[in-house]
Amino acid sequence: MDAPVPLELAVRFAETDLMGVVHHSAYIVWFEAGRVAWMEAAGMPYTRVAESGHHFAVTHVEAQYRAAARFGDRVQVITWLALLRSRRVDFRYQVRRVGDQALLATGLSQHICVDLQGRMTRIPSWILDGLQAGAARLAQSGDPALVYQGDGP
Amino acid sequence: MDAPVPLELAVRFAETDLMGVVHHSAYIVWFEAGRVAWMEAAGMPYTRVAESGHHFAVTHVEAQYRAAARFGDRVQVITWLALLRSRRVDFRYQVRRVGDQALLATGLSQHICVDLQGRMTRIPSWILDGLQAGAARLAQSGDPALVYQGDGP
Amino acid sequence: MDAPVPLELAVRFAETDLMGVVHHSAYIVWFEAGRVAWMEAAGMPYTRVAESGHHFAVTHVEAQYRAAARFGDRVQVITWLALLRSRRVDFRYQVRRVGDQALLATGLSQHICVDLQGRMTRIPSWILDGLQAGAARLAQSGDPALVYQGDGP
Amino acid sequence: MDAPVPLELAVRFAETDLMGVVHHSAYIVWFEAGRVAWMEAAGMPYTRVAESGHHFAVTHVEAQYRAAARFGDRVQVITWLALLRSRRVDFRYQVRRVGDQALLATGLSQHICVDLQGRMTRIPSWILDGLQAGAARLAQSGDPALVYQGDGP
Repeated sequence: MDAPVPLELAVRFAETDLMGVVHHSAYIVWFEAGRVAWMEAAGMPYTRVAESGHHFAVTHVEAQYRAAARFGDRVQVITWLALLRSRRVDFRYQVRRVGDQALLATGLSQHICVDLQGRMTRIPSWILDGLQAGAARLAQSGDPALVYQGDGP
Repeated sequence: MDAPVPLELAVRFAETDLMGVVHHSAYIVWFEAGRVAWMEAAGMPYTRVAESGHHFAVTHVEAQYRAAARFGDRVQVITWLALLRSRRVDFRYQVRRVGDQALLATGLSQHICVDLQGRMTRIPSWILDGLQAGAARLAQSGDPALVYQGDGP
Repeated sequence: MDAPVPLELAVRFAETDLMGVVHHSAYIVWFEAGRVAWMEAAGMPYTRVAESGHHFAVTHVEAQYRAAARFGDRVQVITWLALLRSRRVDFRYQVRRVGDQALLATGLSQHICVDLQGRMTRIPSWILDGLQAGAARLAQSGDPALVYQGDGP
Repeated sequence: MDAPVPLELAVRFAETDLMGVVHHSAYIVWFEAGRVAWMEAAGMPYTRVAESGHHFAVTHVEAQYRAAARFGDRVQVITWLALLRSRRVDFRYQVRRVGDQALLATGLSQHICVDLQGRMTRIPSWILDGLQAGAARLAQSGDPALVYQGDGP
């Protein structure tokens, strides 16, 4: 399950708060952008899941904040698939500052599969297989710059 | 069409930016909360419009900013129905600081009626009539504190 | 430390996403509004902390999602002071739907005290004492509607 | 003053609403990201303005919405410097869907220069000159793909 995918983002002015740094809720949105990027890199874009009438509803999210991101920073959201079961998928995240690679935050999200009425359901097998195959492919291609470095989430 | 409805909101910390004041995009969200409050006060809550398979899609929005709102402030979003046609509805807004009633911003939004596929359509007559009747009732009941004071949007 | 403070909010249209329900990041902003309300109820409003040149920086936040909030719902964010140390303060949260009191989400946030340069510092004693005294007062006055019901955060 | 700068963004899931499309307030945030990109391309990044103790406070913003952006879309925010005076700077915007270049929205923002206390002030001459020189350079280098096409803001 070691298949990191990086996404680079520029901090938006609107994401800062009166403390002069990025508001903590912005990271939750960045994590989501990270897992969308992970799924696209894995060959199973979230749009395909949605078009099939399914969603990965969030049941748990958490973030640990280590250092502040600031306006003017570019950040890298690195996403890993952390768990994949018939009814559940988890992702882990690191947010690093581009440049010095300082670790700003780590995170975790847990998801269940729901249908368009919001009812819990099994992840369709073609989605499950696609995610698994994508994760395996990403783990093999392993960009050394993104190897999990032990201080992570 | 002179039927102001006030909505009082507490500024959220997350709505501030690194300038130490409320970010200008927050007012656009407040305007929306204001017109939702207007429709509820008029007896035609937006949830009824949505449940009937219609939406009031925004075609134009604008805001003029006169003074900053700050964390700790309570603000009053005052909303007027500005125009009502078979295919269009406009709202006007004032944002005032609670306490000294200082005018912080004014605004305008224009809307067309769309169906669930996003196609432009006439506003169903029961919605049109409901809005008209609600506006008339609100104009009559006219809270003097909310009379349009000439310096407005 | 059993001193719940409720804050009632109307779901904003802007807080929904294409799944038709409130986006999970909105709850993180609601938790913040909840702790701001707690501090005000405790007689130690966050504006006083900020004016003294201090902030309670978020080091950890988490949320568990049990049921969806929808546009048209009013929700109650109930906040408890969970931990208070010389350098740390934690809050716990429940989000309930107004009406049937259904539990929609629970959460936790952890904070350190920082100065205006973002350096970690002790919580000034007058703030610490104020929070403690406020929590005690709130615990005594205990609104029965808000007694912690065991299924909580 | 014809110096368009494009910024490409992926629509975020969090930017959608229950109508299934991007919420109109997200475009206001995209415009801001667009003018930050314009200033960086012009060699006068906003971080330099802020570090000098100045801000370009928004006094007016408006947007016209023509077609919806959806999750899965990539959009291009194209920004022009529209006006530059000793005390004022305006920007114009187009949002286009990447792929078919469909025009989704146009917009305008007006700004005054303020100091750290929020008092209106002249734009410092080194900033004014830098913006002017950057605009001239951008207008010359003119990427044909971005020539203003007459249907714009």
